[in-house]
Amino acid sequence: MGLISDTNVGPLHAERIAEACRQQGLDVVLQTFPAGESSKTRRQWSELTDGLLDFGLGRDGCVVAVGGGVTTDLGGFVAATYLRGVPVVQVPTSYLAMIDASVGGKTGVDVDAGKNLVGAFHAPVAVVADTGLLRTLPGPERGDGLVEAVKHGAILDEGHLSAVERSLGGLLSAQPNVAAEVISASVRLKAKVVAADEREGGYRQILNFGHTIGHAVEAASGYRLSHGSAVALGMLAESEIGERLGVTAPGTKERLRGVLSGLVGHGPTPSGAAFREAEALEAGSPAAGAALLDDAVAFLVRDKKARGGRPRYVLLEELGRVAPGDGWTHDVPDDVAHEALRNALESR
Amino acid sequence: MGLISDTNVGPLHAERIAEACRQQGLDVVLQTFPAGESSKTRRQWSELTDGLLDFGLGRDGCVVAVGGGVTTDLGGFVAATYLRGVPVVQVPTSYLAMIDASVGGKTGVDVDAGKNLVGAFHAPVAVVADTGLLRTLPGPERGDGLVEAVKHGAILDEGHLSAVERSLGGLLSAQPNVAAEVISASVRLKAKVVAADEREGGYRQILNFGHTIGHAVEAASGYRLSHGSAVALGMLAESEIGERLGVTAPGTKERLRGVLSGLVGHGPTPSGAAFREAEALEAGSPAAGAALLDDAVAFLVRDKKARGGRPRYVLLEELGRVAPGDGWTHDVPDDVAHEALRNALESR
Repeated sequence: MGLISDTNVGPLHAERIAEACRQQGLDVVLQTFPAGESSKTRRQWSELTDGLLDFGLGRDGCVVAVGGGVTTDLGGFVAATYLRGVPVVQVPTSYLAMIDASVGGKTGVDVDAGKNLVGAFHAPVAVVADTGLLRTLPGPERGDGLVEAVKHGAILDEGHLSAVERSLGGLLSAQPNVAAEVISASVRLKAKVVAADEREGGYRQILNFGHTIGHAVEAASGYRLSHGSAVALGMLAESEIGERLGVTAPGTKERLRGVLSGLVGHGPTPSGAAFREAEALEAGSPAAGAALLDDAVAFLVRDKKARGGRPRYVLLEELGRVAPGDGWTHDVPDDVAHEALRNALESR
Repeated sequence: MGLISDTNVGPLHAERIAEACRQQGLDVVLQTFPAGESSKTRRQWSELTDGLLDFGLGRDGCVVAVGGGVTTDLGGFVAATYLRGVPVVQVPTSYLAMIDASVGGKTGVDVDAGKNLVGAFHAPVAVVADTGLLRTLPGPERGDGLVEAVKHGAILDEGHLSAVERSLGGLLSAQPNVAAEVISASVRLKAKVVAADEREGGYRQILNFGHTIGHAVEAASGYRLSHGSAVALGMLAESEIGERLGVTAPGTKERLRGVLSGLVGHGPTPSGAAFREAEALEAGSPAAGAALLDDAVAFLVRDKKARGGRPRYVLLEELGRVAPGDGWTHDVPDDVAHEALRNALESR
């Protein structure tokens, strides 16, 4: 059994798990890599793979990934390609990983050209989400991970969006029972989508709401902007696009802004830090802001979801419902997309 | 569309294919990598992937691999992991690739620890095998690739084995119609096995006949021994194991030796070169021979098919039929396996 974790989560949780497994008589190797998105590389994937080969893990073994989204993505990709694929057990320890990364089988690494551009679909044989572990999650990462729960509500169930809103205090203070309720509701929503379209041929693309612009902004910031903050920005921009094209009900963007501001907004919320960092990126100098916008526009056309070189956008009809479009995505005039992107960057 | 080929096959065939596709209005990039097994690396996979990203290939694009087994394995792995997987069309140009590599969806690269240890299952959307292209295949590689056809006969159909034997002249001189007949029969045999067990959970393992010892010898030679020669050696050794354990009908090894000697034997056959190279490896000096044996034994326990650190062997019941064993493979006493390995190395 090959345990994979990072230098933050390893000492907190993975070492105990390794020890417990050893006491059950299992042969375990624990590998930890430097925490952070910058470890989600082909080089780190190679090193972890070679570590498993040195350990002698066979096809009858499995990989267990313990940590946040970086760990579940990276560990999942190691498992997907090790001896052409061994089972992976995901043990998510962050909101982002529990709600999103460990469901649906997406694994992968980042390359210079963009995020998650190399990877595989590799569904976990089990996901063990212990909401008691969330108390070790740093404050800013809590609100950040909950952005994906907001997204699930926005595309599939307005009631779930309200539930996140109502439970905000308990969620941000990582109360295990409150967290368990919201997480399981969110996972059920996502799982239904994934089950209908595992390889993202059509319907599953609705999960990319906020992610076309979100990924572009995240990449343009050199990944200094957190994933949650970038997707929050993306959802606001893509709502504005929808409203301007007459596809999305008016007022959708403002309602989303209200919920998201409690998670990654300007206020004194635990996750203000990530947003302030992005702010510093552009407000620090007007030139930096303009450069961020230009870079984000450049990344838009390299998006995985692009067709024939044109980026595709998931647009809402209203909160809780996605507009069908052409295979669940839309082509959008460049000027409308870029204007919405600029507004989202400036209006935060 | 991303065409992938090597420096041998690129100028012979892939450039024409690229040109023909461009004339049909397709946007095509052709990437060629240095010919040879030593290119089947994570580094080469990264470079080809980055080339496709620079070209801007989207999810609506596809990869076309034109060449032998190295190209279909490497190109297939690029496709399997590019944007989490895009379709691949395999255009095999060698016997090995037509008969074996392009059927069944195995893709991957080699690492220091052994061959094909990193990869994915990624079935091609189409395989285009033009037996007219075989005339450009160097002589030694012809007999070498046909070893896998012998294997298909040995495990599934004694009649196919006889057909290969009868057609040997036409096969080695690459007569398109003779080749087409044997190849399609061989592919049908393999496809039936793969369809029954795509992910190699059980029955598909019978295709590994000759490959436990074959891969070990190939790796121990530093891949100077060709795949076909190594598998031929492996089939002889694994037949001897089966006969000694009373699992395989007596005389099986000798019958196989007769067929294989026409392909990779001592005689003046086109593929004698590969065998002579292996011979030089050991006969050159007794020490080198002993070292080859020791290295091969070391590689045996690192085999992908190992369970709990023990290598597993596919054994025949008789020609055309595999012994069921424990999930189609057998545990074999080390002394029996090593003795058979030594005999196969020495008796050629």
